[in-house]
Amino acid sequence: MHALVLQSDFGHADGAVCAMYGVAESIEPTLRIYDLTHEIEPYNIWEASYRLIQTIDYWPEETVFVSVVDPGVGSTRRSIAARTSGNRYIITPDNGTLTHVFRLRGIDSIRVIDETRNRLPYSSEAYTFNGRDVYAFTGARLASGVIRFDEIGPEVPVSSAVILPIMDAQLKEGVITGTIDVLDVRFGSIWTNIPHDLIRSAGIQYGDRVQVSIRNDTRSLYRNVMTFARSFSEVYVGETLAYINSLDYVAVAINQGSFARAYNIGTGNSWQISICKSNL
Amino acid sequence: MHALVLQSDFGHADGAVCAMYGVAESIEPTLRIYDLTHEIEPYNIWEASYRLIQTIDYWPEETVFVSVVDPGVGSTRRSIAARTSGNRYIITPDNGTLTHVFRLRGIDSIRVIDETRNRLPYSSEAYTFNGRDVYAFTGARLASGVIRFDEIGPEVPVSSAVILPIMDAQLKEGVITGTIDVLDVRFGSIWTNIPHDLIRSAGIQYGDRVQVSIRNDTRSLYRNVMTFARSFSEVYVGETLAYINSLDYVAVAINQGSFARAYNIGTGNSWQISICKSNL
Amino acid sequence: MHALVLQSDFGHADGAVCAMYGVAESIEPTLRIYDLTHEIEPYNIWEASYRLIQTIDYWPEETVFVSVVDPGVGSTRRSIAARTSGNRYIITPDNGTLTHVFRLRGIDSIRVIDETRNRLPYSSEAYTFNGRDVYAFTGARLASGVIRFDEIGPEVPVSSAVILPIMDAQLKEGVITGTIDVLDVRFGSIWTNIPHDLIRSAGIQYGDRVQVSIRNDTRSLYRNVMTFARSFSEVYVGETLAYINSLDYVAVAINQGSFARAYNIGTGNSWQISICKSNL
Repeated sequence: MHALVLQSDFGHADGAVCAMYGVAESIEPTLRIYDLTHEIEPYNIWEASYRLIQTIDYWPEETVFVSVVDPGVGSTRRSIAARTSGNRYIITPDNGTLTHVFRLRGIDSIRVIDETRNRLPYSSEAYTFNGRDVYAFTGARLASGVIRFDEIGPEVPVSSAVILPIMDAQLKEGVITGTIDVLDVRFGSIWTNIPHDLIRSAGIQYGDRVQVSIRNDTRSLYRNVMTFARSFSEVYVGETLAYINSLDYVAVAINQGSFARAYNIGTGNSWQISICKSNL
Repeated sequence: MHALVLQSDFGHADGAVCAMYGVAESIEPTLRIYDLTHEIEPYNIWEASYRLIQTIDYWPEETVFVSVVDPGVGSTRRSIAARTSGNRYIITPDNGTLTHVFRLRGIDSIRVIDETRNRLPYSSEAYTFNGRDVYAFTGARLASGVIRFDEIGPEVPVSSAVILPIMDAQLKEGVITGTIDVLDVRFGSIWTNIPHDLIRSAGIQYGDRVQVSIRNDTRSLYRNVMTFARSFSEVYVGETLAYINSLDYVAVAINQGSFARAYNIGTGNSWQISICKSNL
Repeated sequence: MHALVLQSDFGHADGAVCAMYGVAESIEPTLRIYDLTHEIEPYNIWEASYRLIQTIDYWPEETVFVSVVDPGVGSTRRSIAARTSGNRYIITPDNGTLTHVFRLRGIDSIRVIDETRNRLPYSSEAYTFNGRDVYAFTGARLASGVIRFDEIGPEVPVSSAVILPIMDAQLKEGVITGTIDVLDVRFGSIWTNIPHDLIRSAGIQYGDRVQVSIRNDTRSLYRNVMTFARSFSEVYVGETLAYINSLDYVAVAINQGSFARAYNIGTGNSWQISICKSNL
């Protein structure tokens, strides 16, 4: 018996998540079911992918993640189950949700869900709620040991999975350039794709002053100097800082303020950030 | 030992739901407690009733639902426990929360909660939080087998329960008329009371074009032609569609947009929708 | 094995809470993990303290609460574990989160967390997410019996804990004065620090008319007469009332409206409320 962790863009305001829980509980009453988040921005596959990489390593091996951000429900997009190199499972529409785990941790095996065997009985007329009828159902059966991974359906090449374009941060002549991957929603910090290692390679150390520039496709939104700090407590309340976030990447924030809201910062590959050491 | 599923209009921002959980956990530490939703619009009994019908069938028999949307707390409204025809339990103020389950699934038996026996000890001076002191307490004791259903209190006629007016959709001369029951909150779809069967009776098939009109007491809000589709993926992003929702009723949406917000659509018996086959 | 109850200001929109759950589940898969709330206003230590007093008595003895509202993360503020006089545990940064439990229930013992022994392995380079790496980790180990309370770290005097200033309500010449502690967020009621006893001492009884005045540092915001009622149902919809809330303190509300929004009421020691019997 392993844990089942659910993620979606359904929110908690209606009964959708509860129906998924009921399906899982009906399969095995002692199953331990948890939430990653159900507040993914509707249809935002990139964010779903990011939240998986943010959390998956903290769960035990063989934990089963079900992620349902599914703009293509009812289309020919495949429903898949992946076994990660770290030996966790992810059940999801094949639409890019595996991107970060694939790129940063690795996927060992992918199987396409055979819905003739892995679907809530009597649900075949329902075309719009695979989260309940296919994903929660299959995830609960896998987590509780009713089926094995190889009973989910035929294996397909890992390389056949849909993977979204993802940029690598780069260091050139002392300037690191990267993209803004995601927001720390509640605190308004921006999280970049710049790993801690690249900061070290650029010779930047805790306490140094760094110049940070942010631009998107159309314009420059921010350019200023701040401290590269261990934590918020090393700068004044209201002061801007760069720091290493809980995933070991560079983030930028205002201590007890919202950097994202202050400068209207968004996320995605068109949102570029550059960092270099400053003498100011 | 059966699952306990809690619903309310309390939200998660304060400690009310947590106090209910604590009361339940104190009765039986191994009890499995889940949430339906706690984001029912404050005092919206109709929505509470709808969320029960949306989820109850997906939970095992003997699951105990506690629903606390209770504008009349402290009045003489009764506190009741109902056994549904599908053998689940619902514990709730008797204010209309049973409406949809009563009409669409059936109720077998209703008992009035005897608060002299079924109330958190030492809570008799608290008049405003029956959710904690009576409903969660009684629900947890029923779900964990501390009491049987017949120990809740005296049986009363099922016909004595408060039931809200509920309209049936109708087909007349090729035009189906119904009401808008509820919103799929996060995606902005509108869910009607028109069952799939009535669409079939009107000779409407997947792929057909249909004319949809929406009006409320004071004015017409929408009148246009759209595709009756199996799923969102059969229309363009931004295109309007009618489809069969996860409860087997007609819904109307904009693919990746919000139909409810686009046209300021509300819910309730004054919100009428009509659908007929179109030649356009 | 005891319950673990988590509270924070992280919200549910990203993966932070899920990472804490994963850490706890990894320590002991059968641990029962619950949420108090994760919607504390960011950095609002006072509110975190209040939500603990609102719920702690409803959980069994030896329940372990982890509360992470931590504006000083990375500073020299201590991480502590407290055993309450009611024999529950609270694990938290030492920043005032214990205020209400300390003042209204009592704390028996406090230990400073020794992070050389009580920290998620391989997390020592992470300076910004003690909630995951220290608090959830230590809380889960305490709740599941992996460590005893005395293994958390060295004991320190209870009097060394950071306690926020807290005002006592007073009765003088028939007028009770107090402060507005917190909002009942979803319903817009205001909860004061005036205990039920003080109302009795002032000779105010259910059904009496009372005059309520509210002011903050700069101006008077409200002054009017209302009924002191047992519950909302004793006044009209839309009518204002004073009542005894679920914690046995005085609250003020509009039946099915929002008093806080109607009059722009805030919380804290600068928000003063006075109540006296009225002859109107």
